[in-house]
Amino acid sequence: MTQILRMSNLYAPTLKEDPSDADIASARLLLRAGMLRKTASGVYTFLPLGWRVLHKIEDIVREEMDAAGAQEILMPALQPAKLWHESGRWNDYGPELMRLTDRHDNEFCLGPTHEELIVDLVRNELRSYKELPVNLYQIQTKYRDEIRPRFGLLRSREFIMKDAYSFNASQESVQETYDAMGEAYKKICDRCGLEWREVEADGGQIGGSVTAEFMALAESGEAELVYCSCGYAADAEAGACMARPTLHAVDAMEKIATPGVHTIAELAEFLDIPESSTVKALSGKDAEGNLICVFIPGDHELNELKIEGVVPGFELLTDEEMKDFGLCKGSMGPVGLPENARIIASLSLKGVPQWVVGANEDGYHYVGARLGEDFQVDEWADLATVKPGDCCPECGLPLDGARGIEVAQIFQLGDKYSKAMGATFMDEEGNEVPFFMGCYGVGISRTLAAIVEQHNDEHGIMWPPSVAPAQVCVVPLTVGDEEVQPMAEKIARDLADIGFDVVVDDRDERAGVKFNDADLIGWPVQIVVGKRGLKENKVEVKLRRTGEKKEVGLDVLAELMGFARRAMRNNTHTGAGYGSFDAIFG
Amino acid sequence: MTQILRMSNLYAPTLKEDPSDADIASARLLLRAGMLRKTASGVYTFLPLGWRVLHKIEDIVREEMDAAGAQEILMPALQPAKLWHESGRWNDYGPELMRLTDRHDNEFCLGPTHEELIVDLVRNELRSYKELPVNLYQIQTKYRDEIRPRFGLLRSREFIMKDAYSFNASQESVQETYDAMGEAYKKICDRCGLEWREVEADGGQIGGSVTAEFMALAESGEAELVYCSCGYAADAEAGACMARPTLHAVDAMEKIATPGVHTIAELAEFLDIPESSTVKALSGKDAEGNLICVFIPGDHELNELKIEGVVPGFELLTDEEMKDFGLCKGSMGPVGLPENARIIASLSLKGVPQWVVGANEDGYHYVGARLGEDFQVDEWADLATVKPGDCCPECGLPLDGARGIEVAQIFQLGDKYSKAMGATFMDEEGNEVPFFMGCYGVGISRTLAAIVEQHNDEHGIMWPPSVAPAQVCVVPLTVGDEEVQPMAEKIARDLADIGFDVVVDDRDERAGVKFNDADLIGWPVQIVVGKRGLKENKVEVKLRRTGEKKEVGLDVLAELMGFARRAMRNNTHTGAGYGSFDAIFG
Repeated sequence: MTQILRMSNLYAPTLKEDPSDADIASARLLLRAGMLRKTASGVYTFLPLGWRVLHKIEDIVREEMDAAGAQEILMPALQPAKLWHESGRWNDYGPELMRLTDRHDNEFCLGPTHEELIVDLVRNELRSYKELPVNLYQIQTKYRDEIRPRFGLLRSREFIMKDAYSFNASQESVQETYDAMGEAYKKICDRCGLEWREVEADGGQIGGSVTAEFMALAESGEAELVYCSCGYAADAEAGACMARPTLHAVDAMEKIATPGVHTIAELAEFLDIPESSTVKALSGKDAEGNLICVFIPGDHELNELKIEGVVPGFELLTDEEMKDFGLCKGSMGPVGLPENARIIASLSLKGVPQWVVGANEDGYHYVGARLGEDFQVDEWADLATVKPGDCCPECGLPLDGARGIEVAQIFQLGDKYSKAMGATFMDEEGNEVPFFMGCYGVGISRTLAAIVEQHNDEHGIMWPPSVAPAQVCVVPLTVGDEEVQPMAEKIARDLADIGFDVVVDDRDERAGVKFNDADLIGWPVQIVVGKRGLKENKVEVKLRRTGEKKEVGLDVLAELMGFARRAMRNNTHTGAGYGSFDAIFG
Repeated sequence: MTQILRMSNLYAPTLKEDPSDADIASARLLLRAGMLRKTASGVYTFLPLGWRVLHKIEDIVREEMDAAGAQEILMPALQPAKLWHESGRWNDYGPELMRLTDRHDNEFCLGPTHEELIVDLVRNELRSYKELPVNLYQIQTKYRDEIRPRFGLLRSREFIMKDAYSFNASQESVQETYDAMGEAYKKICDRCGLEWREVEADGGQIGGSVTAEFMALAESGEAELVYCSCGYAADAEAGACMARPTLHAVDAMEKIATPGVHTIAELAEFLDIPESSTVKALSGKDAEGNLICVFIPGDHELNELKIEGVVPGFELLTDEEMKDFGLCKGSMGPVGLPENARIIASLSLKGVPQWVVGANEDGYHYVGARLGEDFQVDEWADLATVKPGDCCPECGLPLDGARGIEVAQIFQLGDKYSKAMGATFMDEEGNEVPFFMGCYGVGISRTLAAIVEQHNDEHGIMWPPSVAPAQVCVVPLTVGDEEVQPMAEKIARDLADIGFDVVVDDRDERAGVKFNDADLIGWPVQIVVGKRGLKENKVEVKLRRTGEKKEVGLDVLAELMGFARRAMRNNTHTGAGYGSFDAIFG
């Protein structure tokens, strides 16, 4: 990549206006900077500059995977349905799985993930514990038919993933590979210039009991996460909830007329108490249709994943069904429920002796309903979604909240796929045992978008040097000038020769246009070559990230940029290369 | 890629037996050498070693594309049907186009090629002749639902292509880009170690009047080609046919009883004349159903593409239709045809005054039917498929024949797509003009297979150094030996440090197993480190391609391999690096 790019023939059509359908900064800026175009809903084309960034991210991921002992392969996107029937996911996956039929009426899907294919690949070929562990990865195009594609590359239908799959002989071994992948992912996030957190997560459609996500912190992220100064962090969907309900103490249970009160907010306002002093009631049914009544702290939400774990097949009742069970919508409570109701309550409520709850009668609530006296709870469980201010499950301090973009996830899969698909190896005792597996994914195109989400300002993108389409843009102010242009070319050539990726803005455009485009595209460093400066043998160096500018003599430019290049080489293996230009601006 | 590979943990499961469904050497060897696995019919997975070769071919292609001024992008595989409706190909393409419907019932195809997408990408953004030419390329997965996938990677359903598309302001400009791509393709073929020919070709479903194919010569190739010592070469399907019919001269036309004679072979045998002295008759109809009678030299075949060019919609008659027209199957001839018959004959027959043909009566033929007297020909045209022995259309010498694998093709598309899809630019005079376009494809996975087809022997693959998964395999004969193993490791490290891709066969296996696997996988150079050799400070170096072996002193090994590495660096930009090891064996 030591070719010099030239803006005069680079295909990077920048847009003056914000595209109307760009609903997030990264999509807006990548489109405006001429790096990305939309081909269809959730389907994108990477233009030359976007492709260069993508390729650099891929290379970083590749280097870290290779260094961690994983081996690169390439599986097809077309996946035969019969393998998905073996795992049971053909029916389970739902409409997000893109399906098609070939000319001979064989069914295929376009892989959203490759567990089935990789298990099919190694079964019968990877035979002995002596050959394990094996960790195979690919960088490949994935498909997911999102019901509402949005947020540009963050929630698209065709996207690029790095997915790795490990086959291990024991739980200890899969833990080792899992840990090694986690370490590799931290380096990848660092090298891509991301501010990130590793968080507790849920396995989702992949499955797996032990799993963690790597979140790029961003206000625009779809994921909510909680974290603690002690180091604990979790995806709010998955983290344990230790809420802090507040006690509204009264002498004895009292039934209060609450005309028109149907929500927690209305109840808290009516009683002039915090929502955390109320108890929220939800009614549902299990897979057999039995009545389930759920109680959680009033200021929290029921977590679907958690209730599904406690009551498989749980579904909320419709208004009609509530009536059939004799329940009162908007005023439900634990006192006087039907005898057959299974009452499950949030663990956080276990220490609250008196509850503020519905009276099972429209327009009435109880305050001071006494746990164990006025009503009983059948089961206690972690049911609510954690939120900032709840207690850290590890140290008890209040949790902070943030939003994030999930850029990577690691899973321990156990024998979920290997058992279902009959993929076994011979262990030391000569027994046929299903593989222990792990899988490890990085969203490559999503990482690109996450980088832009974290690194932009009102003028455009600010690429970290490690992934910038080029690190240096040389801007001759007057193209065709017999001093300025040759000097700009010489500087560009010298920088390319020492290993920088360089672009020259050799367009016959006004300086303002060039500066605006340079800021929009986001080259980390601009070197401005002008007539006036050259009279004093100087050029102007501008750092995009800080906006700092400095006049640098031509006599020291090469030396300073040489320092920068070496610094970048040294720290791109640990970071994103931000400090590389300190010698100039430091 | 200076990591050292280790056979002990490399995922490359070799097979002792030939896979039963491998119908061609490349598929058989890639499967046996543990480089490739079949996932479904025509759908493959590249294992680590296969992936490495693929990646090296991609990098060669990328370097030559960049050097030729093309810019890399990445388009999606999912293509909206509406763009294919615009070009008209949604209906024209047929069942090879894999189609699917998303959850909102929008139709898509999996792109076999990307003309529609690229035209959609640039229209309305590439606006002025000043911005032209632009040449954009991608390396991407393509789909073609072959009715009968076969020959491994040569005719698969999911495959990797490099496809480039140029937008030019004039025919001269598109010719320039076309020529530049042709030159780049020659370098790519050379650098991949292919013996190749550039041949005249047909546009097929892509379209385009000027087109050439790059054929890797191989007996196993599906394509027949003809070539001449003057430099002319053509795909037999597309080349002009100048047949050499032989005159069977008689005094006057004579009707001969030919009982049981229905084919050219039978006729030639019956009359004891060469097939080239006979004339083959075919009957068909045009799009309107009019009768077309076609005559070509008896030793040639009618070329479907050529007759379609002369008679659009041409279809051969069924036996039933022949009867309806009063024609006699197996004894058709130009004498006494129905009056409404349009008689078209091969140009090569124009100089043949007397023909041996059917008499339009079962069991009878004419010899000496006189052109212009006994019958008339309405039109002369190039109708037959060229074959070896025909005259070179450029110099007249007899053509040689060969078989080949089409690895690349270049096309001038004119305004076929730009006009249909309304993609225009403003020319120097301010007029809106459709782009002149070219498109340029290299089959990446197909090239990999073609390399194996050309470079194998009874022991396995013989990779050219430029694309070998590693150039050097170091084989310690006794793993664990306190002299052999460290010396093997040191040699491997030294070679990796000077830039060779190195593998160490550190498995605890017998020497024979290691040698067989090394030959099967096809590392260009093996360095064998044994106890006995080390006593004399020597190792054995083996060149896979020739089988040559040489004992080399440890004191000169580093120096010789240094020479080899520099030679390889120098000539991998022009060739496949074969001469690199001459210093050792020369």
